[in-house]
Amino acid sequence: MEEIAIEHIVHTLASIRESALQQRQRLSQPPKLPARKALEKCVEWLAAALFPNRLGDPDIQAHAINFYVGTTLDKALRELQQQIRLELAFKAPAEPGKQFHAQAHTLAGQFAEQLPPIRLQLDTDLQAAYQGDPAADSIDEILVSYPGILALIHYRIAHVLHGLGLTIIARLVTEIAHSRTGIDIHPGAQIGDHFFIDHGTGVVIGETAIIGSHVRLYQAVTLGAKNFPKDANGHLVKKFERHPILEDFVVVYAGATILGRITIGQHSIIGGNVWVTRSVPANSHVTQAHSDAKPIPAAA
Amino acid sequence: MEEIAIEHIVHTLASIRESALQQRQRLSQPPKLPARKALEKCVEWLAAALFPNRLGDPDIQAHAINFYVGTTLDKALRELQQQIRLELAFKAPAEPGKQFHAQAHTLAGQFAEQLPPIRLQLDTDLQAAYQGDPAADSIDEILVSYPGILALIHYRIAHVLHGLGLTIIARLVTEIAHSRTGIDIHPGAQIGDHFFIDHGTGVVIGETAIIGSHVRLYQAVTLGAKNFPKDANGHLVKKFERHPILEDFVVVYAGATILGRITIGQHSIIGGNVWVTRSVPANSHVTQAHSDAKPIPAAA
Amino acid sequence: MEEIAIEHIVHTLASIRESALQQRQRLSQPPKLPARKALEKCVEWLAAALFPNRLGDPDIQAHAINFYVGTTLDKALRELQQQIRLELAFKAPAEPGKQFHAQAHTLAGQFAEQLPPIRLQLDTDLQAAYQGDPAADSIDEILVSYPGILALIHYRIAHVLHGLGLTIIARLVTEIAHSRTGIDIHPGAQIGDHFFIDHGTGVVIGETAIIGSHVRLYQAVTLGAKNFPKDANGHLVKKFERHPILEDFVVVYAGATILGRITIGQHSIIGGNVWVTRSVPANSHVTQAHSDAKPIPAAA
Amino acid sequence: MEEIAIEHIVHTLASIRESALQQRQRLSQPPKLPARKALEKCVEWLAAALFPNRLGDPDIQAHAINFYVGTTLDKALRELQQQIRLELAFKAPAEPGKQFHAQAHTLAGQFAEQLPPIRLQLDTDLQAAYQGDPAADSIDEILVSYPGILALIHYRIAHVLHGLGLTIIARLVTEIAHSRTGIDIHPGAQIGDHFFIDHGTGVVIGETAIIGSHVRLYQAVTLGAKNFPKDANGHLVKKFERHPILEDFVVVYAGATILGRITIGQHSIIGGNVWVTRSVPANSHVTQAHSDAKPIPAAA
Amino acid sequence: MEEIAIEHIVHTLASIRESALQQRQRLSQPPKLPARKALEKCVEWLAAALFPNRLGDPDIQAHAINFYVGTTLDKALRELQQQIRLELAFKAPAEPGKQFHAQAHTLAGQFAEQLPPIRLQLDTDLQAAYQGDPAADSIDEILVSYPGILALIHYRIAHVLHGLGLTIIARLVTEIAHSRTGIDIHPGAQIGDHFFIDHGTGVVIGETAIIGSHVRLYQAVTLGAKNFPKDANGHLVKKFERHPILEDFVVVYAGATILGRITIGQHSIIGGNVWVTRSVPANSHVTQAHSDAKPIPAAA
Amino acid sequence: MEEIAIEHIVHTLASIRESALQQRQRLSQPPKLPARKALEKCVEWLAAALFPNRLGDPDIQAHAINFYVGTTLDKALRELQQQIRLELAFKAPAEPGKQFHAQAHTLAGQFAEQLPPIRLQLDTDLQAAYQGDPAADSIDEILVSYPGILALIHYRIAHVLHGLGLTIIARLVTEIAHSRTGIDIHPGAQIGDHFFIDHGTGVVIGETAIIGSHVRLYQAVTLGAKNFPKDANGHLVKKFERHPILEDFVVVYAGATILGRITIGQHSIIGGNVWVTRSVPANSHVTQAHSDAKPIPAAA
Repeated sequence: MEEIAIEHIVHTLASIRESALQQRQRLSQPPKLPARKALEKCVEWLAAALFPNRLGDPDIQAHAINFYVGTTLDKALRELQQQIRLELAFKAPAEPGKQFHAQAHTLAGQFAEQLPPIRLQLDTDLQAAYQGDPAADSIDEILVSYPGILALIHYRIAHVLHGLGLTIIARLVTEIAHSRTGIDIHPGAQIGDHFFIDHGTGVVIGETAIIGSHVRLYQAVTLGAKNFPKDANGHLVKKFERHPILEDFVVVYAGATILGRITIGQHSIIGGNVWVTRSVPANSHVTQAHSDAKPIPAAA
Repeated sequence: MEEIAIEHIVHTLASIRESALQQRQRLSQPPKLPARKALEKCVEWLAAALFPNRLGDPDIQAHAINFYVGTTLDKALRELQQQIRLELAFKAPAEPGKQFHAQAHTLAGQFAEQLPPIRLQLDTDLQAAYQGDPAADSIDEILVSYPGILALIHYRIAHVLHGLGLTIIARLVTEIAHSRTGIDIHPGAQIGDHFFIDHGTGVVIGETAIIGSHVRLYQAVTLGAKNFPKDANGHLVKKFERHPILEDFVVVYAGATILGRITIGQHSIIGGNVWVTRSVPANSHVTQAHSDAKPIPAAA
Repeated sequence: MEEIAIEHIVHTLASIRESALQQRQRLSQPPKLPARKALEKCVEWLAAALFPNRLGDPDIQAHAINFYVGTTLDKALRELQQQIRLELAFKAPAEPGKQFHAQAHTLAGQFAEQLPPIRLQLDTDLQAAYQGDPAADSIDEILVSYPGILALIHYRIAHVLHGLGLTIIARLVTEIAHSRTGIDIHPGAQIGDHFFIDHGTGVVIGETAIIGSHVRLYQAVTLGAKNFPKDANGHLVKKFERHPILEDFVVVYAGATILGRITIGQHSIIGGNVWVTRSVPANSHVTQAHSDAKPIPAAA
Repeated sequence: MEEIAIEHIVHTLASIRESALQQRQRLSQPPKLPARKALEKCVEWLAAALFPNRLGDPDIQAHAINFYVGTTLDKALRELQQQIRLELAFKAPAEPGKQFHAQAHTLAGQFAEQLPPIRLQLDTDLQAAYQGDPAADSIDEILVSYPGILALIHYRIAHVLHGLGLTIIARLVTEIAHSRTGIDIHPGAQIGDHFFIDHGTGVVIGETAIIGSHVRLYQAVTLGAKNFPKDANGHLVKKFERHPILEDFVVVYAGATILGRITIGQHSIIGGNVWVTRSVPANSHVTQAHSDAKPIPAAA
Repeated sequence: MEEIAIEHIVHTLASIRESALQQRQRLSQPPKLPARKALEKCVEWLAAALFPNRLGDPDIQAHAINFYVGTTLDKALRELQQQIRLELAFKAPAEPGKQFHAQAHTLAGQFAEQLPPIRLQLDTDLQAAYQGDPAADSIDEILVSYPGILALIHYRIAHVLHGLGLTIIARLVTEIAHSRTGIDIHPGAQIGDHFFIDHGTGVVIGETAIIGSHVRLYQAVTLGAKNFPKDANGHLVKKFERHPILEDFVVVYAGATILGRITIGQHSIIGGNVWVTRSVPANSHVTQAHSDAKPIPAAA
Repeated sequence: MEEIAIEHIVHTLASIRESALQQRQRLSQPPKLPARKALEKCVEWLAAALFPNRLGDPDIQAHAINFYVGTTLDKALRELQQQIRLELAFKAPAEPGKQFHAQAHTLAGQFAEQLPPIRLQLDTDLQAAYQGDPAADSIDEILVSYPGILALIHYRIAHVLHGLGLTIIARLVTEIAHSRTGIDIHPGAQIGDHFFIDHGTGVVIGETAIIGSHVRLYQAVTLGAKNFPKDANGHLVKKFERHPILEDFVVVYAGATILGRITIGQHSIIGGNVWVTRSVPANSHVTQAHSDAKPIPAAA
């Protein structure tokens, strides 16, 4: 058998890679990025430190829990610090070779201090799930089995990281949850306490969305942008406020799409599958026009 | 560099944990729950025992298949029995320390006896997929690649477990499938034979839904609850019949939402993206009003 | 405790298996199929060979990249060749025992030659993502974190395999992406360059769909078939052209459903949640009728 | 190709197994034994708890060491307790089915309390190695690289377990070290502090040997039994005192063999390769007769 | 930092490799050899099939043992067949590309048929250990903890393979045991039943040694060759009979060296550390001259 | 059951650890050491780079070997550089916090340049084994199965590292081989080409030993120090020349012990089990006095 021309393919790929790097004005050796697999481990450890009885080692004994939390936290923060160094170096092409140990250490420490408030917020989310789902028997079950909670653990961690300027790590963390749950929350979104997403597959919450407390979403709800203005050069204008605001106690049913920087007033209910592009006042109830049902015509 | 105050964080998290446990009237040492990772292995082994040629060891030889099925089944049932013990203990806070070996053994045995009927039902589901998808070339391919079948293997296992009262394990099993396929079937739902879900992402089937035989669903179909009545104390009424009934031979196209304890009569077709909250008779065809198409206005 | 009757269950399962195989006119020893787990590794290696700096070993040094690409490619092609042999043998029941080494080697070589063009196409997809998403900061981030790109890497590899007749492997490859991203692209679909899928959960692109260049889709968009004609024997007609054509520069917003062999003319915009079953000319803008908003009625 | 008669072999092996069990007067289902692999993990964790900076996680940070020790100890003691249960059940054939949870817990606790004294003794052994080997640069290096220390960590743990009656576990623990170092110390032997074994391959120390403090052995030293008396029935007399006593400050050079219940008086030196079967007084120097050296005769 | 000249080193190594291959009259692509890691797994599985209760899955249940043995045997024989193919191809340079499937299958089958006799022989070895060691409490403990038994399991498997002409695999199997136990038995040696090696580190048994039944060896015993005659070209004469014969019931104590094609008559005892190069008649007792003990001279 | 007082044990261990560190004049946070597990991987990769066909990926294809060597070398050197940094920092307590990146890089590069000469030397060792062992069939078999070669691969790598001042890493590397083979070669020893150790268990070669070319050793040979002089303070004098010199073509049979800074003249033969403490001229043949054989006295 003739050999596969592997050397030729390797060199063709190398020249494509080289020119792709040049187009992006990168040197031939691009800086590293934070690594998704490392962050998966890291978030798993953080979740175990936050909820050791439910998301940690299932056989842990009562008298060893604090030891376990400390060890797990230490591992998680060491790994996180490593990833932070990569993000800082990636964003500082003007300082090649700089290691960023001290900055990464400081940022990891600032993140760590937010873990207790994150846990408190997640406790309110668990309450909301228990109160909002007739199928839920206990808070413990919700914690181990509800994808909405898994997504919120990732989001609330990522949101703190995003606030510290670690936008790449933050995005990778929410994408890990997106992949596992089908729930896509941008780490920049602002979400109040007692938040509950049921089922969740297909939920999208955009970068500048603002969600009050006691809000409830069902599967396939989009809180998106309506349009994407370009600047004078034809480039997208980035980062402006373009996603909806949901006030406290809003409920959005499955498949609803809410687009643009509009406000859904508090206690409003958005029905399933509707399409909303204008603000609605408090206590509104938005529903879809009814569908037609008719008999299937007899075959000819 | 100043050290991260890890001890302080550990103790703050401990006191939050402690008060969360007290709010739920739990002792300081909460009972264990069944573990998702253990159940992932367990279902993988059960699937391998059900379909050893396709979902088991890919190199297994013909003369060793029964040995393989027996070994795999034994591993799966041992692990399942362990998880059943945890669920029984979790649900019996009045009997702390009780091990539940005998009950778990009995329940695992009762479950094991249902494996042949589960396999027979799954064979009808595979037939339905083959007959229902123009892109399908063989039943073997469907078994290894269709997410709808993966979801049904999990659901049909979970439904038997749910019927034995093992609601936590059952829910974890269907959530494993939900995470992998985007198909969210509550283990309490009742689903007849020859069931086919195509593509599947975003499908939600609620706890009290009843589905006949020869039913076909496409992606993003919701069979949900319409509303959530509260009792006199303002708490949700749990577990009542609140999801739709789909009679035999019903087809529901992508994105349709069917809510409440309504009945879709046999041989009916529910069109894509429609919203149905009232029962429809047999042989109905429910469709959405058409959309408007108009030219994009010229820019000013 | 009474023992679980494991022997009895094993033999019952064996007889069910036996009769299921006979119904499919298979011998008692069915041929092997390509294995999903092997293909997961394989695609991971191919992605690492295509984008070694971002999707390969995160610690790889600049001077070792070509070594790394060559090694990784070699591993991937060896594994692929193995899986190709299985598919060829599975599809050739008339030649039992034939090993297909030479054919598999040739097909693996033909596939390998398409890797540079695949990389070039993916570079245009990355450009499209960068230009199409206001939240994107750099192409590097997109490559490591956007599910749409992950799905396209799988699709573009699978499409080449599908073109070589390796339909089972191709389908398994796109299902791997489907499971991770919720994006379900049939490997037979034809997709031009500069393609961008944002968020992506719930996107379905059917087997005979044709998509031009510079097309953009949002989450939960379906490009599906409208109906499924049967032949004179009541069997589904398979493989005919039944999915939409999207011309260049078309944009389809979240939740839109486009069904049947229709054409969406170039530069058209399809609004969110709409249902399109007829062709639309170039530059069209299709939108949904607006929903009704009314105050929540006071409780009685 | 004809199939290998695997069923036949399985049944032949089963009948051999059955009759072997009957010969040992065991029921057809033999009780489990402690598992070597589990004990390997267990001793690795205990060593990490004793010397966390050198034998634990190499990246552990200073402020997390106590957390790490606690977590590791908890894991080790849980596993040990499990293995203790197996040994207790194995030795109690008259109580089939008994779980021995409480006794195992008590024994694990008694073992745990001996960990600080074990660490103190090992510290003296490290001192002895540092003072006894001209090639040693630091105590830290000795701890990570000297097989004699590895063997002593296992022995000192095993000796405590042996003292608690856990003879099977104790033997498995010293065999783990034997396999890694070639040093075979019976857990029943009594060994004082400041003990040093250099190189170590081939050292054998028997069950009833007694070794004082500040003793030093080189490779291939045997402290063995001289003969094996049988009782009236022709069976070996088991467990009587049959191995040597080495008093304080004795040095035994490579390859020496000391057999029987004899005493080597304090400060004695036993030369390399000698064979000693009679007691020697304190301060003795035992050496081998010199060898003959002569020219190699010229070939005929 | 200057880069390490990795490309240069790779090419230098390649040219050394190339010329080494040429010196051995090999083509530039050398045939593969059986792989040690694969054989480690394989022997582990064979040992588990021979002694499932003690060397297999520690949690296996009684009713599943035959399933377990069959599955494990099937895995082991598949892997073995693969390795046999490699050895056959390596030894047949005149038939490049030949796959040897059928021959390997036949040899694996012939090997498999010898497993029951191997088990029976090992049962006699276990008896011998129990009867020969005063420290042994039960046959079960011996099976899991005695290195002599581990070495014999490997040897008895390897000896059958050696007899089938699979000399490379056979040697790798005994080297696996050598590495774990320090006991080096050439697979060509012939060893009768009821064989016991105590402690074992340093034992060497040469290729043409013949050992009767009921023989007992202690650590560091060598049964070696005395000299290595060369042929007319100055090359070693290979494979001639050059190692000792030990008749039934011989005992050899620690460190004894027996060299050359001599015979140790039945029931003889060879003392520790002696050097024997001439045959001894039955019932002999060979011992070393005694050593001198004198007081350590007072320091000047 | 009463809880095990794990907190108490942790704190007792902490205070013992603390005082042990103080005795060694270390700060409370001791510097890290190179890690054995990391070096095991590292040497495995180096061996694979040196002998890719035999000690690398067994399925590697001919056209990919250089890619494989480059990738493996890169991984090995990255890991080595990391371990070098740890050794440099450990040995520089006066420069706490210094990272030593540049020095480690330089040292790794200097090591890498010695790989081709190491390979050339090992090729002579393989030749010597082939020529010296009547049981050897091919050089390929020797490479994969002879423990003497495994030990020499580790030694020759370690010796170069030792020459670069990396004494801790070098020692760990030879200890890895010691554990696997029972052959204990100090990395400081100087060993010429065509070196062969047969069987090898129990061989010890001391730090300052010098071995010429074409030397052959059998199992359990010691090249050791005769005595250990102390300085005026009673401390061992370290690192002086205290081990034997073996000139070219010397052969030493099993169990021989050669002690002190003596010279064994070229072409000498040292017989088995002898004890040599004085120099012998070239062409000497040193043997043991013969043992006595007498009949076993009849029992009374």
